[in-house]
Amino acid sequence: MDIATFLGVVSGFGLVVMAIKMGGGLIWFWNAPSAMIVMGGTLAITLISYPLSDVLSVIKVLKNAFMYKIPQPSTLLPEIVELARIARREGILALEKRVKKMNEPFLSKGVELAVDGMEPDSIRGILENELIFTEERHKKGAEIFTVMGTFAPAMGMIGTLIGLVQMLRVMDDPKSIGPGMAVALITTFYGSIMANLMFLPVAGKLKLRRDDEVKYKQLIMEGITSIQNGDNPRVVEQKLHTYLSPEERSSLPQKNN
Amino acid sequence: MDIATFLGVVSGFGLVVMAIKMGGGLIWFWNAPSAMIVMGGTLAITLISYPLSDVLSVIKVLKNAFMYKIPQPSTLLPEIVELARIARREGILALEKRVKKMNEPFLSKGVELAVDGMEPDSIRGILENELIFTEERHKKGAEIFTVMGTFAPAMGMIGTLIGLVQMLRVMDDPKSIGPGMAVALITTFYGSIMANLMFLPVAGKLKLRRDDEVKYKQLIMEGITSIQNGDNPRVVEQKLHTYLSPEERSSLPQKNN
Amino acid sequence: MDIATFLGVVSGFGLVVMAIKMGGGLIWFWNAPSAMIVMGGTLAITLISYPLSDVLSVIKVLKNAFMYKIPQPSTLLPEIVELARIARREGILALEKRVKKMNEPFLSKGVELAVDGMEPDSIRGILENELIFTEERHKKGAEIFTVMGTFAPAMGMIGTLIGLVQMLRVMDDPKSIGPGMAVALITTFYGSIMANLMFLPVAGKLKLRRDDEVKYKQLIMEGITSIQNGDNPRVVEQKLHTYLSPEERSSLPQKNN
Amino acid sequence: MDIATFLGVVSGFGLVVMAIKMGGGLIWFWNAPSAMIVMGGTLAITLISYPLSDVLSVIKVLKNAFMYKIPQPSTLLPEIVELARIARREGILALEKRVKKMNEPFLSKGVELAVDGMEPDSIRGILENELIFTEERHKKGAEIFTVMGTFAPAMGMIGTLIGLVQMLRVMDDPKSIGPGMAVALITTFYGSIMANLMFLPVAGKLKLRRDDEVKYKQLIMEGITSIQNGDNPRVVEQKLHTYLSPEERSSLPQKNN
Amino acid sequence: MDIATFLGVVSGFGLVVMAIKMGGGLIWFWNAPSAMIVMGGTLAITLISYPLSDVLSVIKVLKNAFMYKIPQPSTLLPEIVELARIARREGILALEKRVKKMNEPFLSKGVELAVDGMEPDSIRGILENELIFTEERHKKGAEIFTVMGTFAPAMGMIGTLIGLVQMLRVMDDPKSIGPGMAVALITTFYGSIMANLMFLPVAGKLKLRRDDEVKYKQLIMEGITSIQNGDNPRVVEQKLHTYLSPEERSSLPQKNN
Repeated sequence: MDIATFLGVVSGFGLVVMAIKMGGGLIWFWNAPSAMIVMGGTLAITLISYPLSDVLSVIKVLKNAFMYKIPQPSTLLPEIVELARIARREGILALEKRVKKMNEPFLSKGVELAVDGMEPDSIRGILENELIFTEERHKKGAEIFTVMGTFAPAMGMIGTLIGLVQMLRVMDDPKSIGPGMAVALITTFYGSIMANLMFLPVAGKLKLRRDDEVKYKQLIMEGITSIQNGDNPRVVEQKLHTYLSPEERSSLPQKNN
Repeated sequence: MDIATFLGVVSGFGLVVMAIKMGGGLIWFWNAPSAMIVMGGTLAITLISYPLSDVLSVIKVLKNAFMYKIPQPSTLLPEIVELARIARREGILALEKRVKKMNEPFLSKGVELAVDGMEPDSIRGILENELIFTEERHKKGAEIFTVMGTFAPAMGMIGTLIGLVQMLRVMDDPKSIGPGMAVALITTFYGSIMANLMFLPVAGKLKLRRDDEVKYKQLIMEGITSIQNGDNPRVVEQKLHTYLSPEERSSLPQKNN
Repeated sequence: MDIATFLGVVSGFGLVVMAIKMGGGLIWFWNAPSAMIVMGGTLAITLISYPLSDVLSVIKVLKNAFMYKIPQPSTLLPEIVELARIARREGILALEKRVKKMNEPFLSKGVELAVDGMEPDSIRGILENELIFTEERHKKGAEIFTVMGTFAPAMGMIGTLIGLVQMLRVMDDPKSIGPGMAVALITTFYGSIMANLMFLPVAGKLKLRRDDEVKYKQLIMEGITSIQNGDNPRVVEQKLHTYLSPEERSSLPQKNN
Repeated sequence: MDIATFLGVVSGFGLVVMAIKMGGGLIWFWNAPSAMIVMGGTLAITLISYPLSDVLSVIKVLKNAFMYKIPQPSTLLPEIVELARIARREGILALEKRVKKMNEPFLSKGVELAVDGMEPDSIRGILENELIFTEERHKKGAEIFTVMGTFAPAMGMIGTLIGLVQMLRVMDDPKSIGPGMAVALITTFYGSIMANLMFLPVAGKLKLRRDDEVKYKQLIMEGITSIQNGDNPRVVEQKLHTYLSPEERSSLPQKNN
Repeated sequence: MDIATFLGVVSGFGLVVMAIKMGGGLIWFWNAPSAMIVMGGTLAITLISYPLSDVLSVIKVLKNAFMYKIPQPSTLLPEIVELARIARREGILALEKRVKKMNEPFLSKGVELAVDGMEPDSIRGILENELIFTEERHKKGAEIFTVMGTFAPAMGMIGTLIGLVQMLRVMDDPKSIGPGMAVALITTFYGSIMANLMFLPVAGKLKLRRDDEVKYKQLIMEGITSIQNGDNPRVVEQKLHTYLSPEERSSLPQKNN
């Protein structure tokens, strides 16, 4: 579970609720038609912009944003180096019995194909393709949230316009402007809250997730190619180190090869 | 028929109508000069921005956005693999009698040229050219809608400015501000609704359509080249698989070659 | 004469005038200082942003946007194919007497250089250079209009601020806010009209013009290179076809070579 | 002296002053705290965004924007062609006595290095480096003005917010809103004027300056390389022609080589 | 300590405080819920957008922006040239005893690896990797500040909407609009101040810092490669000169080689 996302959403909405309670009741900020037009309208626009299947997959993506366990390249790296050592000493077929014990499906799939004797280029092609689809799926997720974050305030403004026109039509005295205006403004408030405390920052985090995962899978691809080439394990280690930050590198267990 | 686009437009406008009805009559939101200035003005701007022929083709493009049947690469892939098998076993001329039965004109055109003995590079050139024009046509469609979505709110604001000036000119008492202001705001409302519930999301969907179709036609081009090269059908299948998402791949019928 | 640009400008301004007349007299919307500050200010900003010569050339560019005859590649293509046929049959010198009869100066210049015996690379260099300058000139035209379309609303807002400050300074009663506010808003109205019904869409059309003309001249360059290489006329035709859209291709006269 | 920049600034501010005088006294538009917060604030933000040395160099850059003499490639081109002729006929050392008479330091530096016998690649490297620094200096100048043009309106708005809060705090009657509001709006007016009539268009002109100077120095570099290679003067001339626009080319003195 | 950043922040906030004091007391501009919603909300959004570790590192980055000592390539260049001279005369191993005395860790690391006999390509790979991580860290710092600068005004607007709704709900007379409106506007004021006088310009400076440091480390990398290649010290000097501006070059001590 990603603590930052959780902390951010809870504290963000918590602060807004607190600020509201300080100046009056929460009930003043509830307006069913406003909620309906902002949420429904944003969803409707998303349905026009994206195919149904993409919109439905957003829920999965959202869960992803909250529950995602960040992959730890530093735990994977020693494993790949070990595989390279075995492959170099005993031949690549010796990796067969280790495939089952791997926790990372992307790695085990690549090793399996190598054990099967597929050519390095073909393996790379297959893994790259899988990488591209992972990337596209994440990218589309971030895009849908960006679209929702762009149109939610627009729907908020449309709702406020409706409220203003209705209020102004029946207004015969500017003194009565208060409560009607307050209701009209709530729709803008909803659109703004949803975009700025939900859709846009989640889109930002999904973009970072994608970068992390792509980098992680590139490390695995690099490792599998090295294993197949029968590279020296020390060289493999050094190559893969370039995918780690200095902090991650210093957290690696020291090896004596 | 693309259900998402239809659902989105109907529910989006439905929600707006509902929200209006909750607070008064629909009639308050009808103003002929406002509609005229927003719709007419946006059309006029589009005519200045694009040649007449491009603007007229928008109607076709719009139909496309609603009625488009998304191409199913997964139904086409086995067909191409089968063609590769026949071409490899019986020679490329054996494909001649199958050309007529093909539903996909882009595929049948390519196979026909291959049967005619045209060189692979020339075929690729001709198909690529057709691909580029498909892409450009879709791109221009998306661009025109983006332009309309940008200028509709501007025309809405211009209409509101006209209404405000007229109202303020004759105003001798701020108390009478209500109804005049309401009418002035309706033009902004029209511009905003048209841009956010129509033009901009349709532009978004047209962009996705283009990506889908380009990917689909690239798959066909890849297939035709493979057939002409006399590639092993298994290799053809594997190559084309890279154009499918994992979901599409798992929906493919299992073959035993 | 480009009908769409003309239709667009006339109908756009016509609609605005109609909308104004429906709610009062046109005279309410005339304010000399407002017109002065928006038009003069936009011109002044353009003079700071661009050299004097570029600003003066805008008038020529504007005429171009309205009076431009779209080049018809489909009428030029048979001519180039015919030239290729003559050059192949009778040698490139045989083209000399046809140069005078050509309507397209870019084509006649290229053929002339080829007849003079200049090397293909040098000819390509000279023609490309001319192409680049055509492109830059059009690009600068579009850019100047974009700049004007960006700053006209800013000048409108500045004018409105001036009006508001003047009105508020002497205001001793909010009831008198009407007419002064109306005058102040007219400057915003002018800036908005000029940007959205003139500068920005004209900039859009100039960009399309540039793309059209570049594509057209690339077709000619491709043709001249082919002629000089003594390519088979059928091959020349096929090469040039890739510059046409399917519609343009089907409008070509059928040839039997 | 660049007449367009001067004309633009003078007429732009002149128009604003005229528009102000038409509706009242200039004194209404003077407010010391407003000027302080917009000018001082924009300067403070620039100091946070850029190192002190860059900010100080802005004054030099600004002088540059006003007093810059546009380099005339058409006067330089015959000189370079003449140098090529001498170098080809009498050897590159013959250029030594001409170096002192050159007005263009970039050209004389390059020729000097060539006379010294440095290799073409090294000369190109040194000149390119100088070109890159000229470009970066101009680019940074344009960027600083863009930053100032972005933050000046923001500071204007901040000043207006301060004025509004102060006015609203002591307001006990909406009727007294006028003069206080007028003062508050002046800060927005200052920010808007400074950004739109100064910072942003000057940034635009500096960008064009940079393009002009880069193109001019590229012409010189091309020329020096050609001289060192001992190219035929006619070829040199033709090569350099590609850096001129058709207008510039036709203004060149006709040569008979 | 970077004087410009310090001067900018102090003078920027000083000006705002002065402007406030001129029109009333500072106390009018203090509102606890407003501060809470803008600062807390912006932090919450940052937590949703970025992982916790990145957000925490912002404090380090901020210190960096204020306390950063700009690297002086002009003091480093003679040192590298000296190293090249020693390596050429006495062999690369002769550099071993000088490594300890170096102040620049990036340089000493590279020289150490070269003395250890690692291949130039591997050294370059390791140093480049370190360069990329330095760059990414700085880039992420600038991005986080940009995100904060984008969302702080949004949170300000949300707070103002809350204040407006609360004020309008209880308003029975427009005359009482003053003080409530003033409080509501303070939140917008906070968001605007924080974004424009802190987050956005600091993001700008961090971007420049990154460029400076990357350029500085590239110079070192270039130098180490030259030393290992045993290049002539004069050539090394000339190569490294290309990383200096004319000003920096003229400040270099003159050498007689």
